[in-house]
Amino acid sequence: MKKIPYTTVRPIRSLNLLSQEEIIKLSSPSAELHQLFRECALAILNTDSHEDDAEEIQQLYGDFDIRLKSQPRGVMLEIFNAPAQSFVDGTLIRGIQEHLSSVLRDIVYTDFKILAEETNSSAKITDKVFRILRNANMVRPNVSPNLVVCWGGHSIPREEYDYAKHVGYEFGLRGLDIITGCGIGAMKGPMKGAAVGHAKQQITHGRYIGISEPGIIASESPNAIVNELVIMPDIEKRLEAFVRLGHVIVVFPGGVGTVEEIFYLLSILLHPENKYGIPLIFAGPESCRDYFNTLDAFLKQCLGEEISDLYEIVIGEPETVGYKVKQAMTEVHENRRETEEAYYYNWQLHIDPMLQQPFIPTHENMAALNLDPSLPKHLLASQIRSAFSGIVAGNVKSFGIKEVAKHGPYLLKGDPDIMQAIDNLLHIFVKQQRMKLGQGEGMYQPCYKLVG
Amino acid sequence: MKKIPYTTVRPIRSLNLLSQEEIIKLSSPSAELHQLFRECALAILNTDSHEDDAEEIQQLYGDFDIRLKSQPRGVMLEIFNAPAQSFVDGTLIRGIQEHLSSVLRDIVYTDFKILAEETNSSAKITDKVFRILRNANMVRPNVSPNLVVCWGGHSIPREEYDYAKHVGYEFGLRGLDIITGCGIGAMKGPMKGAAVGHAKQQITHGRYIGISEPGIIASESPNAIVNELVIMPDIEKRLEAFVRLGHVIVVFPGGVGTVEEIFYLLSILLHPENKYGIPLIFAGPESCRDYFNTLDAFLKQCLGEEISDLYEIVIGEPETVGYKVKQAMTEVHENRRETEEAYYYNWQLHIDPMLQQPFIPTHENMAALNLDPSLPKHLLASQIRSAFSGIVAGNVKSFGIKEVAKHGPYLLKGDPDIMQAIDNLLHIFVKQQRMKLGQGEGMYQPCYKLVG
Amino acid sequence: MKKIPYTTVRPIRSLNLLSQEEIIKLSSPSAELHQLFRECALAILNTDSHEDDAEEIQQLYGDFDIRLKSQPRGVMLEIFNAPAQSFVDGTLIRGIQEHLSSVLRDIVYTDFKILAEETNSSAKITDKVFRILRNANMVRPNVSPNLVVCWGGHSIPREEYDYAKHVGYEFGLRGLDIITGCGIGAMKGPMKGAAVGHAKQQITHGRYIGISEPGIIASESPNAIVNELVIMPDIEKRLEAFVRLGHVIVVFPGGVGTVEEIFYLLSILLHPENKYGIPLIFAGPESCRDYFNTLDAFLKQCLGEEISDLYEIVIGEPETVGYKVKQAMTEVHENRRETEEAYYYNWQLHIDPMLQQPFIPTHENMAALNLDPSLPKHLLASQIRSAFSGIVAGNVKSFGIKEVAKHGPYLLKGDPDIMQAIDNLLHIFVKQQRMKLGQGEGMYQPCYKLVG
Amino acid sequence: MKKIPYTTVRPIRSLNLLSQEEIIKLSSPSAELHQLFRECALAILNTDSHEDDAEEIQQLYGDFDIRLKSQPRGVMLEIFNAPAQSFVDGTLIRGIQEHLSSVLRDIVYTDFKILAEETNSSAKITDKVFRILRNANMVRPNVSPNLVVCWGGHSIPREEYDYAKHVGYEFGLRGLDIITGCGIGAMKGPMKGAAVGHAKQQITHGRYIGISEPGIIASESPNAIVNELVIMPDIEKRLEAFVRLGHVIVVFPGGVGTVEEIFYLLSILLHPENKYGIPLIFAGPESCRDYFNTLDAFLKQCLGEEISDLYEIVIGEPETVGYKVKQAMTEVHENRRETEEAYYYNWQLHIDPMLQQPFIPTHENMAALNLDPSLPKHLLASQIRSAFSGIVAGNVKSFGIKEVAKHGPYLLKGDPDIMQAIDNLLHIFVKQQRMKLGQGEGMYQPCYKLVG
Repeated sequence: MKKIPYTTVRPIRSLNLLSQEEIIKLSSPSAELHQLFRECALAILNTDSHEDDAEEIQQLYGDFDIRLKSQPRGVMLEIFNAPAQSFVDGTLIRGIQEHLSSVLRDIVYTDFKILAEETNSSAKITDKVFRILRNANMVRPNVSPNLVVCWGGHSIPREEYDYAKHVGYEFGLRGLDIITGCGIGAMKGPMKGAAVGHAKQQITHGRYIGISEPGIIASESPNAIVNELVIMPDIEKRLEAFVRLGHVIVVFPGGVGTVEEIFYLLSILLHPENKYGIPLIFAGPESCRDYFNTLDAFLKQCLGEEISDLYEIVIGEPETVGYKVKQAMTEVHENRRETEEAYYYNWQLHIDPMLQQPFIPTHENMAALNLDPSLPKHLLASQIRSAFSGIVAGNVKSFGIKEVAKHGPYLLKGDPDIMQAIDNLLHIFVKQQRMKLGQGEGMYQPCYKLVG
Repeated sequence: MKKIPYTTVRPIRSLNLLSQEEIIKLSSPSAELHQLFRECALAILNTDSHEDDAEEIQQLYGDFDIRLKSQPRGVMLEIFNAPAQSFVDGTLIRGIQEHLSSVLRDIVYTDFKILAEETNSSAKITDKVFRILRNANMVRPNVSPNLVVCWGGHSIPREEYDYAKHVGYEFGLRGLDIITGCGIGAMKGPMKGAAVGHAKQQITHGRYIGISEPGIIASESPNAIVNELVIMPDIEKRLEAFVRLGHVIVVFPGGVGTVEEIFYLLSILLHPENKYGIPLIFAGPESCRDYFNTLDAFLKQCLGEEISDLYEIVIGEPETVGYKVKQAMTEVHENRRETEEAYYYNWQLHIDPMLQQPFIPTHENMAALNLDPSLPKHLLASQIRSAFSGIVAGNVKSFGIKEVAKHGPYLLKGDPDIMQAIDNLLHIFVKQQRMKLGQGEGMYQPCYKLVG
Repeated sequence: MKKIPYTTVRPIRSLNLLSQEEIIKLSSPSAELHQLFRECALAILNTDSHEDDAEEIQQLYGDFDIRLKSQPRGVMLEIFNAPAQSFVDGTLIRGIQEHLSSVLRDIVYTDFKILAEETNSSAKITDKVFRILRNANMVRPNVSPNLVVCWGGHSIPREEYDYAKHVGYEFGLRGLDIITGCGIGAMKGPMKGAAVGHAKQQITHGRYIGISEPGIIASESPNAIVNELVIMPDIEKRLEAFVRLGHVIVVFPGGVGTVEEIFYLLSILLHPENKYGIPLIFAGPESCRDYFNTLDAFLKQCLGEEISDLYEIVIGEPETVGYKVKQAMTEVHENRRETEEAYYYNWQLHIDPMLQQPFIPTHENMAALNLDPSLPKHLLASQIRSAFSGIVAGNVKSFGIKEVAKHGPYLLKGDPDIMQAIDNLLHIFVKQQRMKLGQGEGMYQPCYKLVG
Repeated sequence: MKKIPYTTVRPIRSLNLLSQEEIIKLSSPSAELHQLFRECALAILNTDSHEDDAEEIQQLYGDFDIRLKSQPRGVMLEIFNAPAQSFVDGTLIRGIQEHLSSVLRDIVYTDFKILAEETNSSAKITDKVFRILRNANMVRPNVSPNLVVCWGGHSIPREEYDYAKHVGYEFGLRGLDIITGCGIGAMKGPMKGAAVGHAKQQITHGRYIGISEPGIIASESPNAIVNELVIMPDIEKRLEAFVRLGHVIVVFPGGVGTVEEIFYLLSILLHPENKYGIPLIFAGPESCRDYFNTLDAFLKQCLGEEISDLYEIVIGEPETVGYKVKQAMTEVHENRRETEEAYYYNWQLHIDPMLQQPFIPTHENMAALNLDPSLPKHLLASQIRSAFSGIVAGNVKSFGIKEVAKHGPYLLKGDPDIMQAIDNLLHIFVKQQRMKLGQGEGMYQPCYKLVG
C-alpha cells in the first residue's frame, strides 16, 4: 500500500485563520480534538477507497498524522504517511484539500461554539444544527429551493447505481442540486449524474453536498464528487440537517440503514403538527419492482394503508423522476413563499425530541421499545426506527456487536404481526444481499429475538 | 420524431449585439449567410444525436428555421421546429444555447472580416486563423501551455471509448484542457473523462474546446461536453487551428480520417524548418496493440524508420499517458519561454502552403499525386495525406461519391510498395470495421485503383 | 521635466494578443499607424497634465517612443522617455496602462476592419460607429439605460467645477454612469462626483466613459477617473457615438466648442423623422444664471421660441438635476421597451448625412454657409453648427489659424439678426473668458467678418 | 428634520441568516441586545451627519426603531422614522445598508460567542479580538501587509483635512488600504484620498476599514467612504484591533484623544518584550509645524530623548509620507516573512494586561495614578495614557462630566515637571481649538488639579 511520507497543504479560503487557542487545542497530540481531527482527516484522504472498515483503515495507517503549523499567510497542515491515492503525481487533489479544510472548520466550530453550550432543549438543538450549517456556508440566502436529498444503500448492484446516476442526470438538467450522506453507491450515483447534467446546462457551481458525522465518515469516505462537506457532531443532528436543508427527498433501494432513515422521516411526516410535509419519492430501476412492492406492503402493514399517501413510488423512467421532483420543488417553493417560511432551512418542521436524542442500543433500551399498533402513528414509527437502529448496530457496529456477544440477542417486544413483518423483511434483505453480515457470512444469525 | 414548434432564445453574452447590417445579412432567407447559419444551427441542435448523416438530418428537419429578431436588450433568436432532444421540459439546454451563440459569432466574424480580405499568402492565412480564434476567445494571454489535442475515430468500440475517457480523466487530474474535433467517440471520451478529473480538482472552468467546420458540423454535432466551440471556415484552417493552438497531440485509434490527420501532422513535423515539433503520442487500450503495430509499420514503410522518433506509442496504462503528456507539456512550456515564443499560438510552426490549401478530390487531382519515396519526406507525407483525403471523400463525402460514380475509381500513382501498403491498411480497417462504407455495406468496393 | 527613460508594460487583458501582421504594421517606425499610436500614447501618458497644447507636448517629448515586443504571454510595450507624472515610484499607474491598451485596441481595430471598407453611406457610418464601440466593449446587452452624457467647457472656474462635481455625485447616488469627452473641467467634475456617489452605493464597477479622437486627445488627455476609453477615428463619429450611446444629455457651461455641440444636437432633435428625442438639460451654478439666460435667448433667436421645448434649464440645485435626469432615464427606458428599440445603442435616431461628414473650415466652405432663417430648422441648426465649427478652428486649431493668417478672416453670410446674435454671443464669451485666445491674449480679434 | 416613516431593508450577504434564538434576542423591545442594536443602527443612519452629540441624536429620533422580520429569503429589517439623509429618492444608500448588516453581525457574534466566555486572561482577550475580526472578515489569509492605520482629530481645520486627503491619495496610488476610527476629519480624509488613488490604479476593492465601538459610534458615525465596519465590544478591544491589524501607523494632528492614543501605542512600543515594533509616522501640513514641535518636546520630556527613535515626523510633502510608509510596509513584510509571523494579525505584539482593561475615570482611580519618571518607561506611558483618558472623560464624556460636577476636579499626582508639561500642552490645545469644551465655550475650566 503506497503512502506519501510527508507533505504540506494550505487549508482553503479563510479556514486557515485559526486563533492561537484553536491551534493549541488541535495540535496537542494527546488532545481529544486532535484525535478526532486525525481520524476524520484520514477518512477524507481515503476518498473513493473501497475499503470501508474504519478499524482496518486505522490499522493500515497507524503512522498517519496531521499537524498544524503557523505561517505568515495562515496555517499550514503537515501530513505524514497519507494514503497515496489522494495524490496525483505527488500533489494532493484539490477536492480532498477542500474536504480537509471543511473538517477543520466544522471540528473547530463545533468544539468551541456549539458543544460548550449546555442547554439542549429541542429548539436549542435545532438552533445548533442551523448554526453549524450556517458556519459551513450550507444555508444561503436568496436561493430558491432546489436541494434534493438522495438516500439509499451504499453497496448496490451496478444496475441500481446506473439508475441512480441517470436520475441524478435528470436532476442536473433541471438545475437541481444534490445532498447525500457522502459515501458511494446511491450516494455517489446521483451526484455523478447531476454533474453531467449541470455541465450541459453550463452550471459551473452545482452543489454536491455531503453531510457526514465523525462516527461514519471513516466507513463512508466522501466520494470524489462531493464539493461541499459538513461534519455534524452526531447522527441525530446529521439526520436533522438532511430534513431541514433538503426540499424534496428521493429514496433509492438500500438495506436496513435505509429503512431506519425511512422510519425517521415517516415519524416526522406523521407528526400531527406538521401541516406541510416533505415530498418523498421512492425510485429504482425495473429490477427493483419487487423490492419496492415488499417495502410498500411492509410500511402499510406497520403504519396503516394511508401511509402510502406520504410517498410516491416510481419504477424505471428516470426522466419521470426528474420531472416529478422538479414539480414537487416548485410546490415547495410556492408553499414557502405563501407561508413566508425560510427557503434555506425548514424551521417550521416539528421534530419530536425523541428523534433528536441518540438511541443507545443496550439490551435494556431495546427491551424497552414497544412496537404497539395502538400508539399514535408518529410514535410507533419512531419506535420502529429505534428497533431498526438497534438491529443495524447489532449487525455492523462495534458497540452493538459487543453487546450481543456479551448478552445474547436483543429481546424485541411488540405486536406479533409487526414483529413478524420486520423479521420477514430482514430475511428478504439477506436474500437480496442488502445486509452486510458479520464474520461468518452466508449464514445470517439474527441479533434479536422476538418476544411477542 | 419530436420537434419543438416554436421557441425564442437569447444569444449568450455580447454575441447578441449585432449591427443592423449584420442582422440584415443573416436574416434574409435567400441569403447564403442565412443558409449557412441555418445548417450549422440545426447541427448544433442535434448535439448528442446518433444520426450523423447530414443530408438525412436536413430532410427530417426541412421545416426547421432560425431567425433574428431585434429586442431592447439585444438580438433574439426565433427557432422553428427544432429537434426536441436539445430541450429539457421545453427549455433549451444552456450548453446548446452557447453553441448557437458561437456559431453566430464565427459566421458573422468570418464573413465580415476575414473572407472579405483577398490576399491569401501563407502568412495571411495563418494570421486569419489567429484572428478567428482570437475573436472566439480561444487564444488567451497569461495562460501557461495546457492544451491537449485529442484525435481519433468518432465511431469506436466501447472499450476504446472507455480507454479514451480514462486517459481524459488523467489529463483532467493534471489540470490539462482538451481540444477535439467536436464529435463523439474518441472526441467525446477524453472530454468526459477530463470533466470528472477537473471536478475532483475543483477546477470549475475546465476547457473542452471543439473545433469544427461548416462541412462537417452536421455529421459531427458537437458533443454535450464541449463548452467552447469555434467554426473555422474550411477544413485546412481547422487543421491549422488544431496544430497552432494545441501544445501536445494524442491520437487514439481511428479510421482513414485519422490517418489523414496523422499524415498532415507528420508532414509538418518533418518540415526541415521546424526545429521544435509538437509532442505526439499514440495511445489505445490493450485491444489495440495490433492496430498500432500495423500503423507503426505502415508509417515506417512510407516514411522511413526514423519517422518513429516523432511519436511514442503507449498501450494501456492511462496514468502513464497522463504522466507523459504532462511531462511533454512542461517541456513545451520551457521551450516556449526560452525561445520567447507565444504560449497561446504556435506562430513559429512552419506549415507548407500546400497543406493550407484545400485538396479537391477530382480524378485529375488524384491522378496528379505522386507517392514517390524519393521526394523529401515532408512532401511525400503531404502527398499521402492528399491520397487519403481523396479516399475518404470517395467513400463518404457526397462530392467524392458522385465523382467516383461518374468517372469510375480514382487512379492512384506512385511507388508500388507504398501503394500496396496503403491498400493493405485499408483492408485491415475494413476488417476492423473502422471504415464507414456506402450503401451496400459489407462488401467493400475500393474507390481507387493503384496504377503503380 | 522628469522623464522615465525606459520601461515595459503589458497591455491589459486580451489586448495583448496581436496578430503578426498587426504587430508589423504598428511597429515600423515610419508607418503612419505607428505615428498615430505614438501620438495617442503620449497624450495618454500626459493624463491630468495641465499642458493641453498638443504641439508643445510633442516638442517636449520628441524623444518619446513606444514599441511592441512579442513575449510568450502576449505582447509587451516598450516605452522610452515617458512623462514621469504617470508613474508612481517608477511604476506606471494602472489606469494609464488600461488607457494605453484601449488606444492600441481601437487603432488596430479601426485600421484593419473599419477604414478598409469603402462605402460610406449614412447607414454604413452608423454601423461602423456601432462596431467600433462594440469592439471596445462599450455597448453591452442586458443593461438598462443609465448613461448620462456630460458636455461643457474644459477650462472653467472653480465654482462651476464644484457644481459639476456635485451634480455627478447625485448621478452616482442614483446608479447613473457618465460619458464625457475625456478632458478636465466639466468633463472631469461629473465623473469625480459620480465616483463618490458610486462608492457610497457600493457600486464597484461604475462606468466613467471617455470618448476621444486622435486629433483632440493630445489637447484633452483623458482625466484620471476615466476607466473606459475609446478612440473614434474622427470628430463626427465621436459626436455620433455620444448621441447613440447616451440616454440623457446634460450640458454644463462652456465656450464656443460647447455651443457647437449644442447645435449639432439640436439639429438632430429638430429632424422631422426623429419622433423620440434625447432628454436635454442645461445646468449650472447660481453664478451661471446670466450665462444660461444669454444662451437661451440666443437659441430662441436663431431657432425660434419653440426650441426651448427641447431642453430644460436648471440653475443650482444639484439634487434636482439628479432627480430630473433619473426621471428622464426612466422614461427613456420605458419608451425603448415599448418601441422594442435597443437599450444599448440608439439605432432609431436619424442623423443627417451632412452631420456625419467633416466640415473643413476653408474660406470657400465658410462662405458657402447660409444662415438663412427660412431654411427648415434642422438644416439651419446644422449650418450654424458649421459656422461655429469654423470659428473654433479659426481661433484655436492650427489648420484654421493658418487659413486665416493666409487669407484673412472668414466671410460669413446670412441673416443679419442671426449674424449679429452670434457676434454678441462671442463677445460675451470673450468677456467671460470662455474663449481661448491666440497669441495676443487680451485683445480678441474675430477670425470672421459678417457679410450680411 | 426629515424622517423616513417606514422602510424595509434586507441585510447584505449571509448576514440575514439568523437563527431563531438570535432573532428572538434581538427583537424583544425590552432586551438589552435590542437596545444596543437600535442605538448603533441609529448612529449608522446618521452617517455623514455633522451632529455628533449622541444624546441629542437619541432625543431627535426618540421614535426611531428597527426590528427583524423573518422572510423566505432571509431576515428583513423594518426601520421606523429613520433620518432621511441616508436615503436617496426614498431608497437607503447601499453603503449604509452594509453598515447596518455589519452592526447586526458583530452584535450577534459578540453576544453569543464572545462575551459568554468567562475567562479573561490577556491571551484570551487577544484571542477574542482575533475571533471578532475574523468573523467580520477583517483578517484575511494570503494578503501581503498593506494596512495603514490613520489616527488624528475628527474636528480639524480644512487645511489639515486636505493634507490628510492628499496623504491618503499617495497611499491609494501605492496600493495601501486604510484603517481609521470611522469618523470624520483625519479619519475621513485619508480614506477619501485613498479612494481616488485606488481608482487611478483600477483597484476596485480598496479597503476603507472603520473600527468602532458602541460607546463612540453615536458620536463618530462611520463616514461614507468606510466600506468595512466592525464594532468591537469596548474601547480597549478597539485599540487592540488597531495595533494588531495595522502594519504601519500614521498620526495626523488631533486633540487630547489623539494624545491618549499615542501614549497607548508608545506604551506598547516601549514594552521590553516587543522586539519588533510598529512603524510610526507623525504627519501634518506646514501649518502644523509648531504643533508637532510641541508634541515632540512633550513626548521627550515625559519619556526621555530616546523616545523619538520610535517615530518620525514629516511636515508637508504628502508624497514623502506615501513613499516612507510604503518602505516601512515592505520592511514589515520582510520581517514577518523571516520570523514566520502572521501577516494578518500581529500575534507577536506584547500588550500589557493593564492596557487591555478599561480605565474607569473615578476620582479614586485618577488619584491612584502616579506619573513618576522613575517607573519603567512603558508603565509610565501607560499611566500618562490613563491620565489623558480621564481628562478626555472629564471634558466630554457624560460619566466624567457628572463625576467632576459632583466631586470637583480630579486630583492628579506625580512628577511636577511632567504635570506641568501636561498642563501646558492642554492650554496650547485649547488655544488651537483642538479641545472640545463644555457648555460655557471660550472659558476653559480644567477638570483636574495638579497635586505634585
